[in-house]
Amino acid sequence: MVIMETAYFNGKLLPKDEIKISPDDRGFLFADGIYEVVRWYEGFFYDMNSHMTRLKRSLRELRINWSDADSFPPFAGELIKINKLENQQAMVYLQVTRGAARRSHNFPSPEVPPTVYANAWGFLPNDKLKETGIRVMLKEDIRWSRCDIKSVALLPNTISFQEAYENGMKECIFVRNGLITEGSHSNIFFVINGTLFTHPESNYILSGITRKNILRIAQEAGINIREEAIQENRIRFIQEAFISNTSAEVTPVTELGGNTLGDGVPGPVTKIIQDHFDKEIKALKG
Amino acid sequence: MVIMETAYFNGKLLPKDEIKISPDDRGFLFADGIYEVVRWYEGFFYDMNSHMTRLKRSLRELRINWSDADSFPPFAGELIKINKLENQQAMVYLQVTRGAARRSHNFPSPEVPPTVYANAWGFLPNDKLKETGIRVMLKEDIRWSRCDIKSVALLPNTISFQEAYENGMKECIFVRNGLITEGSHSNIFFVINGTLFTHPESNYILSGITRKNILRIAQEAGINIREEAIQENRIRFIQEAFISNTSAEVTPVTELGGNTLGDGVPGPVTKIIQDHFDKEIKALKG
Repeated sequence: MVIMETAYFNGKLLPKDEIKISPDDRGFLFADGIYEVVRWYEGFFYDMNSHMTRLKRSLRELRINWSDADSFPPFAGELIKINKLENQQAMVYLQVTRGAARRSHNFPSPEVPPTVYANAWGFLPNDKLKETGIRVMLKEDIRWSRCDIKSVALLPNTISFQEAYENGMKECIFVRNGLITEGSHSNIFFVINGTLFTHPESNYILSGITRKNILRIAQEAGINIREEAIQENRIRFIQEAFISNTSAEVTPVTELGGNTLGDGVPGPVTKIIQDHFDKEIKALKG
Repeated sequence: MVIMETAYFNGKLLPKDEIKISPDDRGFLFADGIYEVVRWYEGFFYDMNSHMTRLKRSLRELRINWSDADSFPPFAGELIKINKLENQQAMVYLQVTRGAARRSHNFPSPEVPPTVYANAWGFLPNDKLKETGIRVMLKEDIRWSRCDIKSVALLPNTISFQEAYENGMKECIFVRNGLITEGSHSNIFFVINGTLFTHPESNYILSGITRKNILRIAQEAGINIREEAIQENRIRFIQEAFISNTSAEVTPVTELGGNTLGDGVPGPVTKIIQDHFDKEIKALKG
């Protein structure tokens, strides 16, 4: 049985097939838009509050006026229900662009309504990778210098990830000015002599929701934390690493840019954080 | 009378209103696409050959397989005719994306057909600005490091241009590592002691078609040329400047980042290049 997928478009729920973006949409012509991906755990959205805070920040940074942003949590819930995803894990994707207007680099004047699109899909987490860990590529960061904005200008991310993918790697980690920043769609953490390192919030990384929660969890677990970038030339000192994002949660990294980390298996600090993360999710499921 | 605009979409000419992009299009989701803008001068496209060469290079760099790329010049001509633009100046915009597929950073596998969209519009050149010159802003280059690819990941360009626009400036010129690169949608040239300078071809600038033709014209006119970037801290030595692109052609810059250049009016070298450029266009019109 083919289930008709229902999506959200500018205030309405409708069959996804009927949603059509204008060729004048600034999302299509200029990547002039932002997005969020929220995770549904059989009954609740993970840290929707933080996603809403980041969504509003992205809109504010780009001066996209979506006055109805607070409607997102309710319609995300409706997308889960109407697509019969309540009792499984799922993702809701939201994209907001500056709207459709005759092509010109400057913002439309008078302003046009933003384009708001969202859809939902069932999600099967890859638990095996969380046990075995992954190998990741290292590559010069070719992205712009406002990586803190969750924009849809993701071409650099896609071509970098594709390169990793074709080399059998599960993520591409970026290096800028000799410092390891983050992945094409994840943040990255390192353990050196028991201390947990990750790149500080800046214009060179996206402030991940899972990143933020991992830092909180690590602190609660009494792990020493330093929000400080690791130099590429210090990889040999790294004993453990893991990436984080909404879908990967806490996924160990066993090889970084051809270098085996520690014993080449997920390390003890990584496992503590994974355990605490999983326990929180279980507790939230009630 | 409202004229129904006809555009091109995946092999067909149809009313622009009927063209609808899928929300799964990678142009919309990831800025995973490229574009060209060609100019129609009442009877011919300006240097279509160079646009075709650059188009194919962009496609190759991103590994977007549009096997029918050579169909562009003929259907661009059809767009001019069907929209009754033959006897005026016009622009044809072409965008090619990696196509529509379920959202994933890696390229669709199996491959999907690219999305090909084009439209045309009548264009009234602003001849006054070519006489008086323009004031332009200077700003740190926030773009990615593959500016040589004419991609639709233009968010940095739009927000930078918007900043210039709101400050009454006609372009935003970028500075990277202390060197002046190019504008948000133009190249820039400088005259210092009679020598014409412009940033060399590299990953930090787009290889403009008008830029290339200006270099040829300057050479033919016996002007000394150096494809060499100008340091921001050497602005006081600049006597003349102009920007170039398909729509601005050769437009003098009289003020750069708050600094008046030379006498604050278009300079003699700029005028020579403008004259030669205009003569070429006239000759082509026959």
